[in-house]
Amino acid sequence: MFEKPLGMIDTLPALYERAREVQSYIERETESWGYRPIQTPSLEYYETVGNASAIREEQLFKLLDREGQTLVLRPDMTAPIARVVGSSMKEEPLPLRLSYCSALYRAQQHEGGRRAEFEQFGVELVGDDSMNADGEVLALLTSNLRASGLSSFRLAVGHIQYMNAFFEEIIDDPQIVEELRRYLYEKNFVGYRQRIDRLEISEAEKSRLHQLHSLRGGPEILERAKTLAYSSKAHQAINDIEDLWGILQDFGVHDVVQIDLNLVGQIDYYTGIVFEGYGGPLGFPLASGGRYDELLEKFGRPASATGFGIRLDRLLEALNHINEGGPQKRSTLILFHKEHHQQALQEANRRRQNGESIVMQNIASVPDINAFTDKYAEVVSITDRRGGHNNE
Amino acid sequence: MFEKPLGMIDTLPALYERAREVQSYIERETESWGYRPIQTPSLEYYETVGNASAIREEQLFKLLDREGQTLVLRPDMTAPIARVVGSSMKEEPLPLRLSYCSALYRAQQHEGGRRAEFEQFGVELVGDDSMNADGEVLALLTSNLRASGLSSFRLAVGHIQYMNAFFEEIIDDPQIVEELRRYLYEKNFVGYRQRIDRLEISEAEKSRLHQLHSLRGGPEILERAKTLAYSSKAHQAINDIEDLWGILQDFGVHDVVQIDLNLVGQIDYYTGIVFEGYGGPLGFPLASGGRYDELLEKFGRPASATGFGIRLDRLLEALNHINEGGPQKRSTLILFHKEHHQQALQEANRRRQNGESIVMQNIASVPDINAFTDKYAEVVSITDRRGGHNNE
Repeated sequence: MFEKPLGMIDTLPALYERAREVQSYIERETESWGYRPIQTPSLEYYETVGNASAIREEQLFKLLDREGQTLVLRPDMTAPIARVVGSSMKEEPLPLRLSYCSALYRAQQHEGGRRAEFEQFGVELVGDDSMNADGEVLALLTSNLRASGLSSFRLAVGHIQYMNAFFEEIIDDPQIVEELRRYLYEKNFVGYRQRIDRLEISEAEKSRLHQLHSLRGGPEILERAKTLAYSSKAHQAINDIEDLWGILQDFGVHDVVQIDLNLVGQIDYYTGIVFEGYGGPLGFPLASGGRYDELLEKFGRPASATGFGIRLDRLLEALNHINEGGPQKRSTLILFHKEHHQQALQEANRRRQNGESIVMQNIASVPDINAFTDKYAEVVSITDRRGGHNNE
Repeated sequence: MFEKPLGMIDTLPALYERAREVQSYIERETESWGYRPIQTPSLEYYETVGNASAIREEQLFKLLDREGQTLVLRPDMTAPIARVVGSSMKEEPLPLRLSYCSALYRAQQHEGGRRAEFEQFGVELVGDDSMNADGEVLALLTSNLRASGLSSFRLAVGHIQYMNAFFEEIIDDPQIVEELRRYLYEKNFVGYRQRIDRLEISEAEKSRLHQLHSLRGGPEILERAKTLAYSSKAHQAINDIEDLWGILQDFGVHDVVQIDLNLVGQIDYYTGIVFEGYGGPLGFPLASGGRYDELLEKFGRPASATGFGIRLDRLLEALNHINEGGPQKRSTLILFHKEHHQQALQEANRRRQNGESIVMQNIASVPDINAFTDKYAEVVSITDRRGGHNNE
């Protein structure tokens, strides 16, 4: 009777206060980089944004409006922001730096702890096609994760065009490329190897495909990447990464970055640099992002763009600082009898003005005084009309 | 193509920053009263919470989950919080003070500027049936509105039981009582008068019904209220208001309160004191609330409760401070050529550490330099490798 829908959760005070504290650190950092927050509606037309969001159909929460049009609960924020940049903000000059902190919705098929609603903080940098923009969002992501208090994390950076060029050089059938890409997306490297072994291509080509796996590490892997794929498209992608690496060095964040040319990106619309962030004991990325230079034109304003999203629920899990063992005792309780209300109030006002959190409570309404007072850091009883009180 | 569903809006940076500033003032004030924030899911089972929310059926956004169960986008927060208090927080001792700031969803039937999604800030004080609890939430509402910067507002306070008793004394037919109550709910006082005139009751009784309208003002109206309804239920309600008035005097907030015994309350589940807040030029209440002593038992934990909600969109409208004439210029822009990235970054880091908001921009990526620089309070160009710069 008192259940919640699949994948939906309540966030109780101790955890929620911690979540908002972390959120405020990230927002303050992002504001200092000149990004400005916007908010879009939870519901969008499927035709407008649901399609462009490139989230799998079965993950969309859909409903019909009065006119029979299909609405979706937004599954990501990149497409809604692209809509805004192409409509209500179409007069704003580019480049444009925007941030958001919003609930996203992705329907779950099975019990299994996956969230169907989660908060995501993110930024979009629209209209700058230079590697400085890719470097800036990676550096801002790093600053944000540091501001959150996360002491240990790493970012994996890849390039969609390198992977596209690499597969195009070896495999003709786009269906097979899609299959291989799917294994990489799922990080199913065993599946990837086995599928390669079943391909009807030369052993030399199989060996090349297998070697993609080794293209992870520092900039020293880039020379090898150039020999493994030799089209100009592949080499342009490697040049991008070399440029990017220099910019990341300027920012002083290259030490948390690993190049990983196996990275596919979580979402279809990426067109260049893609990245994921990992921290703590999590198998899932707590942040992801990349360049998407073709999405904005679907909303009538062709422009390059890049951005990232941080899953705040996963960041909190990685922070592992969360005290779920009961509420923190941060408030003082002032207990009063009805006739001493005014004295109690004077005491409460005085303390609130000093920045204390004060609960005032008519003692007659407390059914279990021990259980109730146990929740407070300090308990003050107002006991007589002369305003005296004692601490318990 | 780039439209939004009916009643859905985008909130652009200037307005959103202002909205969050106001929200932060209110949250800080509420925290100092010892209320702790919680968050519940956007989607709830219709059977669990949609029913209890007492929002009109046609205002609910409904969808089906995989198992064919009906879900609703939460139309209010009181029922979801009652669910939490009866389930995940069932071990927490009463009284319990909770706050929230959440989007609520109410489908609109027609174009007309009414929001289908809006942010509401609110509190619930569960488990205290004394007038101190009613007084506390009214005083906290007053403190919150003052903290938001609203200089002029008023609260109207009524009592559901007085109105019930008054009608019961005069009219037998519950259908007619419902009709009269509906007119009052809609604040259609002409309709109320006309309906009374068509009733088949004595002129003396009609006159009594008409006089309800005059029961607004300070505590001086309470004596008249006792002569207009004489059942013990009516008199108990008036005693409640007298008690409440003394408590509001203790809090020093009685000067913004008007007693209004015509007040019906926005939602069916109210059982005692009800209130609405008005400010600025708005015809709609920007806040409302009241006592609901029968809702919690639907969630397995019988307890008295009272609370309020503030519609943040309406509060912002009432504040009338919102500068929608373009974004505020609060950031400094540092323009750099690619080869001066490091110098630009040093300058940006220095300023960010001083709390400034700094946008760094590769000048090669700016299509219209005049339009772009116009958005910033200050523009710094990094022009040579020795780290020199000039202000434009």
